[in-house]
Amino acid sequence: MTSGQHNDNLPGKKEKREPASRPDHSLPEDEKMGVYHAIYTRRDIRREFLPDPIPMETVLRLLKAAHHAPSVGFMQPWNFILIEKDEIRRELKRVVDKERQAAAIVFESPRSEKFLSLKVDAILDAPLLIAVTIDPAREGPFVLGRLSDQDTDLYSASCAIMNLWLAARAEGIGMGWVTIFRREDVQGILNLPYHVRPIGILCLGYVREFPRRPMLETEDWAYRQPLSKHVFVDGWNRQEGTLWESMSPGLDRREEWPWEL
Amino acid sequence: MTSGQHNDNLPGKKEKREPASRPDHSLPEDEKMGVYHAIYTRRDIRREFLPDPIPMETVLRLLKAAHHAPSVGFMQPWNFILIEKDEIRRELKRVVDKERQAAAIVFESPRSEKFLSLKVDAILDAPLLIAVTIDPAREGPFVLGRLSDQDTDLYSASCAIMNLWLAARAEGIGMGWVTIFRREDVQGILNLPYHVRPIGILCLGYVREFPRRPMLETEDWAYRQPLSKHVFVDGWNRQEGTLWESMSPGLDRREEWPWEL
Repeated sequence: MTSGQHNDNLPGKKEKREPASRPDHSLPEDEKMGVYHAIYTRRDIRREFLPDPIPMETVLRLLKAAHHAPSVGFMQPWNFILIEKDEIRRELKRVVDKERQAAAIVFESPRSEKFLSLKVDAILDAPLLIAVTIDPAREGPFVLGRLSDQDTDLYSASCAIMNLWLAARAEGIGMGWVTIFRREDVQGILNLPYHVRPIGILCLGYVREFPRRPMLETEDWAYRQPLSKHVFVDGWNRQEGTLWESMSPGLDRREEWPWEL
Repeated sequence: MTSGQHNDNLPGKKEKREPASRPDHSLPEDEKMGVYHAIYTRRDIRREFLPDPIPMETVLRLLKAAHHAPSVGFMQPWNFILIEKDEIRRELKRVVDKERQAAAIVFESPRSEKFLSLKVDAILDAPLLIAVTIDPAREGPFVLGRLSDQDTDLYSASCAIMNLWLAARAEGIGMGWVTIFRREDVQGILNLPYHVRPIGILCLGYVREFPRRPMLETEDWAYRQPLSKHVFVDGWNRQEGTLWESMSPGLDRREEWPWEL
């Protein structure tokens, strides 16, 4: 906090609107909108990837964005395993399909048929396939924060995936995060040490379009809930008091952005 | 995929550089840079928040950004409990301090003293305090994806927190994600149902500056590792083949962005 350097002294048309007393560290207006634009229009893409390869410089930007995620105790628990061999891709598709069949049985009809109709051809079709793993032993047994919560590696790796996802959206690249597999199956295929856990297979590629609505909505599987159901004040289920009164009228109000649905 | 509508037909100086055959869904250049700018300059802020309140419209934008995170099976497992009462804030600070003392003992000297010097005054000082919880029972027992991996609610809630964090950075607001507490303590203070789990206390507020480097680096606790240690191809620890040869020279190369360190 002593350097006196600013991070955001970039060229850009900044609308200054803060009183002089407080430094304004907000990003220039266009850049700020870019963050919301990426957040609101990011989609989980599972099919219809275009075959165009992603340029290597873009792949590197995505990986670096992921690596700049926060991690509890700075443990950086993630690894990114890019899949090059078609044989490994087919093996991953096979174990995902196996798990889909198993899940469909548990869902029972008619949810079961609906579930099986949600294809994950992306694993074969996406030009870029990345398995993300976490190594809970990284940085030794006593990682700051991990003593109190054994799942902090999951939080951190999820943040890395989210960074990658938003960067991909900014680059016009669609992504799907596939979690339907047995850990042991993927461990076997990728030769992971026993303690290293795969948490996702990311499918990436250019797309003809980014659907306006999430796929699970258009497929009538589930819907975005009103935000007001998810916000409380001072305790579970508590929706009262001054803060609540001032906040609640805005929770389900749309922003003026054309991206929001 | 049939709507024919585009999400990103916003005004903006777009540098067209794609061949006509493929639609270009990348964000306008300034917006795209905004995503990377936020990712690279986001910091975990633990202290020295300014007392200025965050305007309600900004608070709402942050919560909505979080709520637009992906969630496995669209389960939206998160709740955001904003803390208004000072008494609850002090209780949260108390149980975090208790856990810090316990962790310090486990770390042992000299790591222990170093750990205790990393203060979390933010819980008292941050103008906005949000506890984030996950409800694993949301949407019933059979959630898509959750059958194969019981931790998908953690992934999804972490993504929501990451969205919120990047939106906060875009708004010039610092944030710290505190995970050092006993689940049972926070459950008691916030009156959470037994199955609802708190995964973080978020401290938010304006800051005098965003430090250039992560706090744990300036405090000599841990350092960002080279990305090349974290990337493999086709299997664990495998760094060979055509893809690796083309990728590896760039992994540890800096982008030209002034934000990267």
